[in-house]
Amino acid sequence: MLTKNDIKLIKSLKTKKYRFLNKMFIVEGKKSIIDFLNSEHHIVKLFSVNNDFDKYELNSVKLSYLELKKISYLKNPDDHLAIIKISVPKMIDENKLIIGLENISDPGNLGAIIRICDWFGIKDIICSKNSVDCYNSKVVQASMGSLSRVNINYLDFNKYLNSKSFTKAGTFLEGKSIYLNKISFSKGIIVFGNEANGISPEIEKKLDIKYTIPRFNNSKNPESLNLASSVSIVLSELLKSY
Amino acid sequence: MLTKNDIKLIKSLKTKKYRFLNKMFIVEGKKSIIDFLNSEHHIVKLFSVNNDFDKYELNSVKLSYLELKKISYLKNPDDHLAIIKISVPKMIDENKLIIGLENISDPGNLGAIIRICDWFGIKDIICSKNSVDCYNSKVVQASMGSLSRVNINYLDFNKYLNSKSFTKAGTFLEGKSIYLNKISFSKGIIVFGNEANGISPEIEKKLDIKYTIPRFNNSKNPESLNLASSVSIVLSELLKSY
Repeated sequence: MLTKNDIKLIKSLKTKKYRFLNKMFIVEGKKSIIDFLNSEHHIVKLFSVNNDFDKYELNSVKLSYLELKKISYLKNPDDHLAIIKISVPKMIDENKLIIGLENISDPGNLGAIIRICDWFGIKDIICSKNSVDCYNSKVVQASMGSLSRVNINYLDFNKYLNSKSFTKAGTFLEGKSIYLNKISFSKGIIVFGNEANGISPEIEKKLDIKYTIPRFNNSKNPESLNLASSVSIVLSELLKSY
Repeated sequence: MLTKNDIKLIKSLKTKKYRFLNKMFIVEGKKSIIDFLNSEHHIVKLFSVNNDFDKYELNSVKLSYLELKKISYLKNPDDHLAIIKISVPKMIDENKLIIGLENISDPGNLGAIIRICDWFGIKDIICSKNSVDCYNSKVVQASMGSLSRVNINYLDFNKYLNSKSFTKAGTFLEGKSIYLNKISFSKGIIVFGNEANGISPEIEKKLDIKYTIPRFNNSKNPESLNLASSVSIVLSELLKSY
């Protein structure tokens, strides 16, 4: 049975403060929940309108679609909603390529980037501390289950970069063409900056390589590419093997 | 002065039906409005909280921020809102590369793809008739002014492809690697399918080349890349010149 406490808890997890206090977040939709089931994440409670998940041993509650609509964050809920435990991030694997995001603010962008990283086999994303929370429901939704496979750490970017000797690259509106200046990037970090302001001067100073994606037309428009598009192109260029 | 009729008209333009009847749509934000000013589009009426646009000869209305909040489609409006005339799409330039979108449904995706096409110098997008409307406010917002520069036609895809003899390619989950099988694509069309279902079997039959973006990891996850990411990678691969 759906209890008042369930409703209260789920509503509270819309905000970062209560996700942090409760160490829980919400995942909706069968496919994404299965991705989390198949990962190391712990499903605290599952709310289902049907018996899709009956074969799993889960702490689950059956409810009507109307009840699901009451607790769902979506306009058109997708039959299942899970409360999942936020686990402590794993150690960063510094023998592989890492993606760094400085002050990323748009949840849709972060979700898309998590999915892109998953596609390209990137295991670790590092976000600067004031970046959007990866357990924000819009991030979870846009990541389409990839959040279950990509390890995300929030930390002091400046300190982290200072302490490491691997290759540090960043993407800028001006720099070396990503198409012409590829280096072997089996380990190191590529940093992408905030949607509006790019990489801060403070972080720029710490970087060894400044990459840019050249514009393909002769005008000055558009000013920039969307952040998720930039990440797609940069990872495609650096990681593809012929 | 902001009139009741203004408010009524602007609210009505939220829906496709009334955009179509009135042949008008809404653009918000200084940068995007300037992009439309610098294009062949006609600004019917401009609502401004300040004098940023006073140097232009526009049919404009000064209003308070509170009044702007009343008419804006955004939570945090950006000082200016313009009603813009929907112009008849231009002829498709079939001597250049065209992007085809079959039944694209997510407005954020279409907006992102318009911006990506603008970046890559693509002038023409063709959408199948039941694709999301490019004058939908979320599309306009996500395109960041690029909608003023990219020509979008909605037409019967099947008929259009049947009538043309240029190269027709499409992107699929299985196909020839986009990294290995590039052809000179100075003219022709590349089709991308619906977010959930991909390209329909009917359209697939009309295509000369089936491209895929190979996965960069050994698992079966994620199932797919986001549509806008796919467009970014495909255009980057096909159009870049070393």
